[in-house]
Amino acid sequence: MRNFSHWNEEGRPKMVDISEKDTTKRTAIARGIITLSDELYEAIQKGGIKKGDPLQVAQIAGIMGAKKTPDLIPMCHPIMLQGVDFEFEYTKSKSGYELHIQATVKCTGKTGVEMEALTAVSVAALTFYDMCKAVDKRMVIKDIYLVQKTGGKSGTFVHHV
Amino acid sequence: MRNFSHWNEEGRPKMVDISEKDTTKRTAIARGIITLSDELYEAIQKGGIKKGDPLQVAQIAGIMGAKKTPDLIPMCHPIMLQGVDFEFEYTKSKSGYELHIQATVKCTGKTGVEMEALTAVSVAALTFYDMCKAVDKRMVIKDIYLVQKTGGKSGTFVHHV
Amino acid sequence: MRNFSHWNEEGRPKMVDISEKDTTKRTAIARGIITLSDELYEAIQKGGIKKGDPLQVAQIAGIMGAKKTPDLIPMCHPIMLQGVDFEFEYTKSKSGYELHIQATVKCTGKTGVEMEALTAVSVAALTFYDMCKAVDKRMVIKDIYLVQKTGGKSGTFVHHV
Amino acid sequence: MRNFSHWNEEGRPKMVDISEKDTTKRTAIARGIITLSDELYEAIQKGGIKKGDPLQVAQIAGIMGAKKTPDLIPMCHPIMLQGVDFEFEYTKSKSGYELHIQATVKCTGKTGVEMEALTAVSVAALTFYDMCKAVDKRMVIKDIYLVQKTGGKSGTFVHHV
Amino acid sequence: MRNFSHWNEEGRPKMVDISEKDTTKRTAIARGIITLSDELYEAIQKGGIKKGDPLQVAQIAGIMGAKKTPDLIPMCHPIMLQGVDFEFEYTKSKSGYELHIQATVKCTGKTGVEMEALTAVSVAALTFYDMCKAVDKRMVIKDIYLVQKTGGKSGTFVHHV
Amino acid sequence: MRNFSHWNEEGRPKMVDISEKDTTKRTAIARGIITLSDELYEAIQKGGIKKGDPLQVAQIAGIMGAKKTPDLIPMCHPIMLQGVDFEFEYTKSKSGYELHIQATVKCTGKTGVEMEALTAVSVAALTFYDMCKAVDKRMVIKDIYLVQKTGGKSGTFVHHV
Repeated sequence: MRNFSHWNEEGRPKMVDISEKDTTKRTAIARGIITLSDELYEAIQKGGIKKGDPLQVAQIAGIMGAKKTPDLIPMCHPIMLQGVDFEFEYTKSKSGYELHIQATVKCTGKTGVEMEALTAVSVAALTFYDMCKAVDKRMVIKDIYLVQKTGGKSGTFVHHV
Repeated sequence: MRNFSHWNEEGRPKMVDISEKDTTKRTAIARGIITLSDELYEAIQKGGIKKGDPLQVAQIAGIMGAKKTPDLIPMCHPIMLQGVDFEFEYTKSKSGYELHIQATVKCTGKTGVEMEALTAVSVAALTFYDMCKAVDKRMVIKDIYLVQKTGGKSGTFVHHV
Repeated sequence: MRNFSHWNEEGRPKMVDISEKDTTKRTAIARGIITLSDELYEAIQKGGIKKGDPLQVAQIAGIMGAKKTPDLIPMCHPIMLQGVDFEFEYTKSKSGYELHIQATVKCTGKTGVEMEALTAVSVAALTFYDMCKAVDKRMVIKDIYLVQKTGGKSGTFVHHV
Repeated sequence: MRNFSHWNEEGRPKMVDISEKDTTKRTAIARGIITLSDELYEAIQKGGIKKGDPLQVAQIAGIMGAKKTPDLIPMCHPIMLQGVDFEFEYTKSKSGYELHIQATVKCTGKTGVEMEALTAVSVAALTFYDMCKAVDKRMVIKDIYLVQKTGGKSGTFVHHV
Repeated sequence: MRNFSHWNEEGRPKMVDISEKDTTKRTAIARGIITLSDELYEAIQKGGIKKGDPLQVAQIAGIMGAKKTPDLIPMCHPIMLQGVDFEFEYTKSKSGYELHIQATVKCTGKTGVEMEALTAVSVAALTFYDMCKAVDKRMVIKDIYLVQKTGGKSGTFVHHV
Repeated sequence: MRNFSHWNEEGRPKMVDISEKDTTKRTAIARGIITLSDELYEAIQKGGIKKGDPLQVAQIAGIMGAKKTPDLIPMCHPIMLQGVDFEFEYTKSKSGYELHIQATVKCTGKTGVEMEALTAVSVAALTFYDMCKAVDKRMVIKDIYLVQKTGGKSGTFVHHV
């Protein structure tokens, strides 16, 4: 059975010793969704925001958030990120619209960037919420998960919800 | 119709001028869920982690994350938080278990703490993921939303998903 | 003669005691310029950047930078900023173009926001440089100064270069 | 023609993927100037500040600012800085004095330290302003530019204003 | 008997709710000592460091450290510091010298600045260590304690070791 | 005689150029003590804190503090920490109890992790103080020192107080 690795023998959380792990190329892709009412979606599309675009702010905040991961997640190692990008897509849902957020993070290092990708998606979603909450506070952030990671001893992992 | 408030006339995002707003007591409550496999839930309960408890780490990170909200969300005002606490509850689901996370944030100020509560929940969920991902990477963070906020000009808001 | 206020009797820098100062509304406006070659200006205008706009990134970074002022400037007091916004204007110059950057910062507090406005302009200019440096590294950031401040014991100050 | 590299196909800013770039030694030198009135210059020299020296504070803040570059500039990669130092020189100008600030930054990595050097100079200049503004708020920060960079695929770049 | 206030009913740490507490002027004074060998003390005095002075760097870092207290100490509330200053004194000891460090912190708020004063002393001591460790790594940081605090419901507290 | 390395020829502090140093495995161990009254020790043991444990919070804060070392100590280089763990032990003393705190930090890099280990101990001690100060403010943090470091040009160093 796989074991918790983040706890020492006293039962207290530790930053795992990765000094003996190999340095490999690593990528991680995470996804999440934020729901929008029809009213909010239309306000964005019809130019309630002229040149502006909440996705611009969300993407910038998400990239900066990925860099802050070791400040936010106590046991995360500092990592030299080598690339972060986002894809966004709106889809129609039964009760309105959904914004699909996907972040891809790359590094070369001794530990993976799964947490960085998940944090990037989370901060992008929170920022989208903040930019739009004056119109509608009923958005829901949902289904944030790790889609794929490559590199490292455990190799490739793929997950589809 | 309600308007986007975070954009200036050029269509670029601004930090909204709140200098004329009233200083009032404000609270916000946010919730979220993270899914666990049976294997992971049992590992936590059966003492795969001796004295340790991922909820301890999640709560501490969530409180520190709430304080970092204006660093993470570009247009958020700095706020003097006056109280942050969490409640956690595990429930059985069809495919395993769900951890319900609820954060309550308080301040006295000119703007609300909705983003702080949502950020607290998000960082707590991400931290729980990090502490447990050695056992199972298939956790999904879902249904993060604002349950309630009080105070300020718009008064009380309640939302149930 | 006016005196340096930021040094204690030992000649070491201190965070000035402002506990006896009045809480007043305060604003500060700062300006700066970054020079662009014709090539760079045209690349921006002709759509070398499709939907993108370096001013979007510059404005977001400038607002976040204003919030980081007490982290950057050692003797600055933490301040609850209540509003930050930018104006940008391109003008033709002899050797190309100039981007004029203006930041306006507001707070209600015991000390002014001059450093926040100057920092906002500086970080916006640095970010514009970063976003465009793949095209031209010869940009020069110049003439960053405090245009105006209001509020506080010393009242209104206006400066034109 | 050289292209903007910091934008994805959607026109949104990304952290450029540098995972395939070579690791090389890199240096960058940036310069800037801050103007001083005669009154301010003499106050500094005549010992308005006894043992104190605004350049000490400016240098310390500039070095710490260089380390904060990826926190300030949204698309900057985190970089392991390996050395930062400053040179300062006062010169007489027509209307008073000028403080010349030069920062040299070194690293071994996959991307350059140009932004770190420019940020170091900017933060040093802002800090000098803050330490002296009680005497004179009319200082102007000007002519911040990249003097030289070495290392990386594009090799050595030299620029004199 | 006095009670732990920082734990909720589940036994997890919380940021205590201070929204009902009075806003009062508050001060805190903390002290600490770092030991120096004769060799190190003499190197500092005889000008091993020309114009430089490790106390300058220690004081600046200590003031910046005080501002970072809520980032470092998980349950600390954000506080608008209104003044921070240091006193330093070298004394002869049996085995060399001792540097006595004292920090005074002021605010007007709903919670005290004890942790800010203790953090200021700690960061100043660590910085002094860093600036001098090339000469001697055997320095010991000792006897950091809260000397005095004023303001708040519990009023004045004085402690002498 | 060993020299101060952190000062440039002008007597101002610099971030030392380590670009020519070898990359080696490095470890550092630091220790410190915090004193407790009998009353406080018993309150902790007898369950004044139910499930809670100030050592959990102290360890988490200490690990996060280690990651913040280059933000706190002005001339410290950014370092990719590869492992941080703590040991704690209570012992009886003449006037009550002492909590012994030991932090071990690992990295592979061009400079050591001594400051990271000392900072980890300091932040853990400060956090313990914060979690317990509602019961007793008379705790004293003492005897923080570097026990051992390995790696780097100067090799192994051991110190016992």
